[in-house]
Amino acid sequence: MTEIIYADNAATTKLDLEAYEAMKPFLLNDYSNPSQPYSFSRRAKKAMKEAREIIAECINAEPDEICFTSGGTESDNWAIKGCAFSLGNKKNIVTSNIEHHAVIRSCEFLKTFGYRTIYLKANKNGIILPETLNNEISENTGIVSVMLANNEIGTIQPIKELAKIAHKKGALFHTDAVQAMGHIPIDVKNLDVDLLSASAHKFNGPKGIGFLYVKNGSKLLSYINGGMQENGLRAGTENIASIVGMAYALKRNVEELTKNINYIRELDTEMVTQLKKANIDFIRNGIEPHLPGNISLSFKGISGEMLLHRLDLMGIMVSTGSACDSTKTQISHVLKAINIHQDYIEGTIRISLSKENTMEDVNCIVSGLTKIILQSDKKSKNYSKYHLAKNMLLP
Amino acid sequence: MTEIIYADNAATTKLDLEAYEAMKPFLLNDYSNPSQPYSFSRRAKKAMKEAREIIAECINAEPDEICFTSGGTESDNWAIKGCAFSLGNKKNIVTSNIEHHAVIRSCEFLKTFGYRTIYLKANKNGIILPETLNNEISENTGIVSVMLANNEIGTIQPIKELAKIAHKKGALFHTDAVQAMGHIPIDVKNLDVDLLSASAHKFNGPKGIGFLYVKNGSKLLSYINGGMQENGLRAGTENIASIVGMAYALKRNVEELTKNINYIRELDTEMVTQLKKANIDFIRNGIEPHLPGNISLSFKGISGEMLLHRLDLMGIMVSTGSACDSTKTQISHVLKAINIHQDYIEGTIRISLSKENTMEDVNCIVSGLTKIILQSDKKSKNYSKYHLAKNMLLP
Repeated sequence: MTEIIYADNAATTKLDLEAYEAMKPFLLNDYSNPSQPYSFSRRAKKAMKEAREIIAECINAEPDEICFTSGGTESDNWAIKGCAFSLGNKKNIVTSNIEHHAVIRSCEFLKTFGYRTIYLKANKNGIILPETLNNEISENTGIVSVMLANNEIGTIQPIKELAKIAHKKGALFHTDAVQAMGHIPIDVKNLDVDLLSASAHKFNGPKGIGFLYVKNGSKLLSYINGGMQENGLRAGTENIASIVGMAYALKRNVEELTKNINYIRELDTEMVTQLKKANIDFIRNGIEPHLPGNISLSFKGISGEMLLHRLDLMGIMVSTGSACDSTKTQISHVLKAINIHQDYIEGTIRISLSKENTMEDVNCIVSGLTKIILQSDKKSKNYSKYHLAKNMLLP
Repeated sequence: MTEIIYADNAATTKLDLEAYEAMKPFLLNDYSNPSQPYSFSRRAKKAMKEAREIIAECINAEPDEICFTSGGTESDNWAIKGCAFSLGNKKNIVTSNIEHHAVIRSCEFLKTFGYRTIYLKANKNGIILPETLNNEISENTGIVSVMLANNEIGTIQPIKELAKIAHKKGALFHTDAVQAMGHIPIDVKNLDVDLLSASAHKFNGPKGIGFLYVKNGSKLLSYINGGMQENGLRAGTENIASIVGMAYALKRNVEELTKNINYIRELDTEMVTQLKKANIDFIRNGIEPHLPGNISLSFKGISGEMLLHRLDLMGIMVSTGSACDSTKTQISHVLKAINIHQDYIEGTIRISLSKENTMEDVNCIVSGLTKIILQSDKKSKNYSKYHLAKNMLLP
């Protein structure tokens, strides 16, 4: 494989090698159906129990509050629709205008069934302020769903405060923690959420597996019906290898969380500092606290798509638009929601760094970006503001 | 690992080693999100396209008619609910009383939404006769769902005739082919079904992946909303490694189908012949055509659970009750549906053989079964009819 700089870790991450090793026995020899009662299933059953315990411990939940799903999108769909369908007459949903499409489209799906969704507006910093929820929530609100951290701009939401407001009005609170899990500390008891979605491939686990935290006692209809797996809440033969891989990957990330956060923050800071020094006209979207390494940048008078492709030619992988689905280049709803200035919005890329990236990667990305932007600047004569300022100082 | 005889291949199968090898690059180096537009995703994108083509070819479909899901249970849920929700006023569903719970529970889920389900009765041979559908279908029927082959007794249903009747009344036809896929020839154009569910781990693919065949032009609402994956029909980051593994496994099985069928039928015939010779009182449930190697046996005056556990002690893995979920021992709805005689029903086990089994396995299973049953016979003085007959001949 040609050496590349992978800086799209918010889209997906590299599978942890220990997680892969842990998966192997269940892909090869221990292939039994974990729900079968004979001895051959014992190892799979035990591994599943342990995986549930590991994951629960990572987020301060109880093991029986962890339901395995096929990923974050299923978890979000289940949380929103499963709650809505089990709540009877409380037909209002409150969510935000910067949620992942898995949440937004689930709410739209429910429209046909008589549900109404209110979209809280993020402020220009990409934050859902608790008072906006206070203004919109009512006795008819069944669920409030606000993401823990945004996938496009990395902003971390005040979930604890939001959940408190939801509960005061008797609504359930769901948070889409797909982007945050494994990257910042998460304590479901402290946050006091009722439901929380996660996806393994965002934290160095395998693709096609995730989980939904369902607080004991929460009202939630099963969304995939059939067998009695996952306490009767989610049917289907358990994906044992991937479940084990997910638990290993999460454990590893959580154990090394502080170290990783510090390391990635260093890279993050260095990148932004270098770009500022390079006399490039850009905005970093969203304010602190950001997910470490989730760097959304809007460059003035430039096409984000062009940036992505030219960086690609240099072996640097970054993202533009929405993370999980960028075959179409449309300006994302998140960028629109935070009202990025017209001159900058089309020039948005997301660089997302991980523990696998190095300072050398940062240097390469900055040098690549600078080269592309300054070249394009010269061509279009659209000098950056620094450039113009400097020119004005010339005699 | 201790050597065991795995004879529960209808519950799950061993992952094909070539399929595993094909998965590895996408678990390790080519970990990119296949929906991303940069060069690093090219191999994943190409592999996904090829996997779709391979699977389509295996069942005589078009590649864009294959939608990847997290498995058979999701496929069934999606087919039933996705159709129901998109069909407006046609609120009747017709299915059978021997379907997998993934179908039955999906129909039950829809009850709350005003849907009514009619359960066609299988005859005592485990077959849904076309005339039973003819009697129950109406202009209000939106979907008819009958499985291609039953998971518990292996009977193969007259899908082509049933689909014809459904279409004549303007209903869509879904078949749950989870148990059949990779084990008998399947041609969706010849069967003329609108929707067909399959699960990789039933045909030597990995767990946690499956597909739904959706005939071009079929009305079907997305059931997992979010991104634009699977033509906008099923959201979520693609589980690329498992998709590739599934395609490899299916291709391999389909290429060797005739050879496998002949081989497994030989084992199947030998087992039943030997058991008959062993003077054991049993019934084989369901009539031909059976799925090769799917052998449901009901022994007189014996507990199936006891059989399962004693065989387990001999290192032989078989199933009792329903395949995917046997932590509780309840007499399955399928066995009830075909009216097995009271003296036999509790003594039912399912032995499901695969291409991995050998004639030696068959000999061991028969000898194990004979030992357990004849011992238990002596203890309980519940002599088998052969025994009694022989005794009556004595002076």
